[in-house]
Amino acid sequence: MNIGIIGAGNAGRTLGSALAKQGYSVMLGSRQPEKLAEWVQIENADNPSIFVGTFSEAAAFGELLIHAITGRKAIEALNLAGETNLDGKVLLDVSLPIDFTEGRMTLFTQTGESLGERIQSAFPGAKVVKVMNHIAAGVMVNPNRVADGDHDLFMCGNDAAAKQAVSTLLTQAFGWKRIYDLGDISAAQATEGLALLASRVASVLGHGMMNFKVSQSTSS
Amino acid sequence: MNIGIIGAGNAGRTLGSALAKQGYSVMLGSRQPEKLAEWVQIENADNPSIFVGTFSEAAAFGELLIHAITGRKAIEALNLAGETNLDGKVLLDVSLPIDFTEGRMTLFTQTGESLGERIQSAFPGAKVVKVMNHIAAGVMVNPNRVADGDHDLFMCGNDAAAKQAVSTLLTQAFGWKRIYDLGDISAAQATEGLALLASRVASVLGHGMMNFKVSQSTSS
Repeated sequence: MNIGIIGAGNAGRTLGSALAKQGYSVMLGSRQPEKLAEWVQIENADNPSIFVGTFSEAAAFGELLIHAITGRKAIEALNLAGETNLDGKVLLDVSLPIDFTEGRMTLFTQTGESLGERIQSAFPGAKVVKVMNHIAAGVMVNPNRVADGDHDLFMCGNDAAAKQAVSTLLTQAFGWKRIYDLGDISAAQATEGLALLASRVASVLGHGMMNFKVSQSTSS
Repeated sequence: MNIGIIGAGNAGRTLGSALAKQGYSVMLGSRQPEKLAEWVQIENADNPSIFVGTFSEAAAFGELLIHAITGRKAIEALNLAGETNLDGKVLLDVSLPIDFTEGRMTLFTQTGESLGERIQSAFPGAKVVKVMNHIAAGVMVNPNRVADGDHDLFMCGNDAAAKQAVSTLLTQAFGWKRIYDLGDISAAQATEGLALLASRVASVLGHGMMNFKVSQSTSS
């Protein structure tokens, strides 16, 4: 399967590298693809399956798309990717609506909305699936790094088949074990807020190699 | 220790009953204390240590206070409790700024603020400690009901001694094992948002006897 990644920052590169190692053909889309030349040359040394291009080229290339742009630039980047390149495709969205303008992490979305919903609304033809938004990139692609993989993913989106495709990808490519389907894309209001909690907990731990797990009663 | 509980709904009564069973003297404060007569008579049958009164009487009675009023009524109830009755005291706050006015759970606070901060700001003499806000009352007082107690609390507040007092109470009275101190009361922005996630997860599980646990790398 060809995967297009919109965004070549830390999350985009980490996801792209890990997916290529699992045999997927990956194109990383960047505003300035020429700046990725050295990185991709090293990545492709023993595994020539990562390509680089513009946002638009990556979006056209991918049968499944990953959105890994910093939240403030999300809509703009997806517009550059091109609505027709998104139409009908799964858009696995790991972006966060966060700001540090007040000296600490806050959400730039308002109560009762989310970035996932904004993206779905701006690109109604895309099948947005929000997942992993608060998780460090190194954990996204290797959940076993944390507690032998004993922690959970929260996923949401309006399209059941798209969520199934994402679930299959994350299980097969990275080894995720439990993925909670929280419902439609409005559940992004709940998962995006986890960024605030993860940031505080990471400060206590002294590192970000963490995630959350649902603990439940065995007999409720 | 005398504990005053502002609010005699499900959370207030559950907390009061459990604390009384652990030997604390408890006064439950209600807008209509006479409505609690039958409940308290049953509770006190073999353990006469629960009293009932007005918000103001409960606040005056308690050396440590618990705030368990539904979010929309929080400031009003605490005003009835009386600022002078709160001054200098620990105020363990389990309230949530949630609404169902749009047909689903949303927060009525805005981005970048929280109910915990509103309460601390309205009553600067109180030592507000936010904790357990998203947890079912039956789990608050008996964490071992869920995964043998293998899940976590997130706590925040501006006063270190107050957080230590709350931590000690929750450990000794209810058996909580791990309590993450997330910092000052602004971390309530992170913990109150957990209500949205817990609600979605509970829908998937089919019950609310759950909580979250931090999973972390053993060697980061």
